Amino acid sequence: MSILVVGSVAFDSIETPYGKVDHCLGGAATHFSMAASYFTDVRVIAVVGEDFLPKHEAVLTARGIDTRGLERAPGLSFHWTGSYAGTLNEAQTLGTDLNVFEKFEPKIPEAYQDSEYLFLANIDPVLQARVRSQMPKVKMVCGDTMNYWIADHRANLEVVLCELDVLLINDGEARMLSGEQNAVRAAEKVLALGPKSLVVKHGEYGATGFFGAHSFPGLGKIPMPFRAPALPLAEVVDPTGAGDSFAGGFYGYIASQPKLTPEVFRTAMFYGGVMGSFAVEKFGTERLQGVTREEIDARFQLFREISHLDFGL
Amino acid sequence: MSILVVGSVAFDSIETPYGKVDHCLGGAATHFSMAASYFTDVRVIAVVGEDFLPKHEAVLTARGIDTRGLERAPGLSFHWTGSYAGTLNEAQTLGTDLNVFEKFEPKIPEAYQDSEYLFLANIDPVLQARVRSQMPKVKMVCGDTMNYWIADHRANLEVVLCELDVLLINDGEARMLSGEQNAVRAAEKVLALGPKSLVVKHGEYGATGFFGAHSFPGLGKIPMPFRAPALPLAEVVDPTGAGDSFAGGFYGYIASQPKLTPEVFRTAMFYGGVMGSFAVEKFGTERLQGVTREEIDARFQLFREISHLDFGL
Repeated sequence: MSILVVGSVAFDSIETPYGKVDHCLGGAATHFSMAASYFTDVRVIAVVGEDFLPKHEAVLTARGIDTRGLERAPGLSFHWTGSYAGTLNEAQTLGTDLNVFEKFEPKIPEAYQDSEYLFLANIDPVLQARVRSQMPKVKMVCGDTMNYWIADHRANLEVVLCELDVLLINDGEARMLSGEQNAVRAAEKVLALGPKSLVVKHGEYGATGFFGAHSFPGLGKIPMPFRAPALPLAEVVDPTGAGDSFAGGFYGYIASQPKLTPEVFRTAMFYGGVMGSFAVEKFGTERLQGVTREEIDARFQLFREISHLDFGL
Repeated sequence: MSILVVGSVAFDSIETPYGKVDHCLGGAATHFSMAASYFTDVRVIAVVGEDFLPKHEAVLTARGIDTRGLERAPGLSFHWTGSYAGTLNEAQTLGTDLNVFEKFEPKIPEAYQDSEYLFLANIDPVLQARVRSQMPKVKMVCGDTMNYWIADHRANLEVVLCELDVLLINDGEARMLSGEQNAVRAAEKVLALGPKSLVVKHGEYGATGFFGAHSFPGLGKIPMPFRAPALPLAEVVDPTGAGDSFAGGFYGYIASQPKLTPEVFRTAMFYGGVMGSFAVEKFGTERLQGVTREEIDARFQLFREISHLDFGL
């Protein structure tokens, strides 16, 4: 099955305790696509500038990603500059140059119309909604957002939330969107805004998913939670794109399965963690360019081994 | 098998968003004993003051806890005053009155000498070491500590760490003890200080254990980690004693088993989380006074259900 992803294809300049890179290939749609490409066909819609060269596109096409939806515009590509210190849990943004992204107006190529899975990466919710309405026949819609849209574009965001089968956000975004500090109450309120299910990412502590009809004992208003681990890592070289890589592994696995069952949802959360754990091992997309399906499956088994009582003993 | 625990039996005055209690029964040895008592025999060594009444002791003896090691001293019992706000993740200490605890000199009753498991709750490491040396024949030693001892009594603490089969600490303590921000490197350094295995508690995100000969791929210096979940809770009424209740469930389960295997260690981490999740549902020891073994086992199954890919579907 094909996933259509709309989001940013960009350049990142990043500094971490492990080094510094200038203008490496990045962007939410890039990281998502690279991770998802190990599971299913991926088609990308984004805008890039004149600095986006054939060698950059080749990173995507080498993974079989369909780039016919990459629009070229005069000017420079979206460029983000950031640095990480300490625990590498949070980026400090030093610069955001929207460049050609500022006037991004997603256009869906005819060849993409039969995509069955839609991923709305973190962009203006007005654009997310517009893309969604142009793809009325998709089987499933999954999306991401961030603090900026939650704080200042809430009404537009709420339109999108109602359309989502799965919303993927982090702890801070869940608290901000719900106004609740408690994680369970926050999930309850976020789900009340419309998404059919929810995955909340906890960085180095994994993720919690809320899916299915099973209600949670003593609460009854939210689906049964599922806790997926993250791999303890001694070296996090570059956390940029970890969340998008999680989303790619998660949604890519779902799109590769005939039906979204509770078991598929749970397994997808594990694959999300797996792809996130690879992504941070090197700068930019480097690790996800070189990983093999065998390494992915070995790491999936490792995720089971570190979280299941009777596995691998 | 019997666990001998040495630590504080105290009174706590606590304020949380759910209410306020004055002088409820608390202390690390109390919470630990209550939780462990559902799995094995527990014997407690502590000092209490004249304000410790028969009704307080009855809370312990009702759970079959052996209180012959409770020493009475003139004056008042150890009293802690604290409050929680926001996410209830961290207590603000408003007062610590050591009272009779200041001159605590643990004495081990003859009847306790055949205890096979020793738990050194969070007290002065000099006392922990003294108790440990008076129990040379125990099969296993497990211990806790806190930031105060790590910062200002490090040399004494290091003597104790060498004696431990399992050290139970939280994230902040692991970082402080190791000087490392990264969780894996922190675990590596803490284990290098002497404990044979390590459990690092993450509050609402569960715990990570490091146990056994299996080395961790790509690192080699630390045992394979194991991630145990915490239960997402909509209401945390009083987090006081959650960590001690975790320790009680964890060590109580281990003491109830014939041998400490990787499977027992993992299962013990789940039972630790289970007892911690009950403890926070009411103020003080109230919830652990009333819980049943059936509820404990049902919640253990719930912990599997929320973390295992193929369980309960």
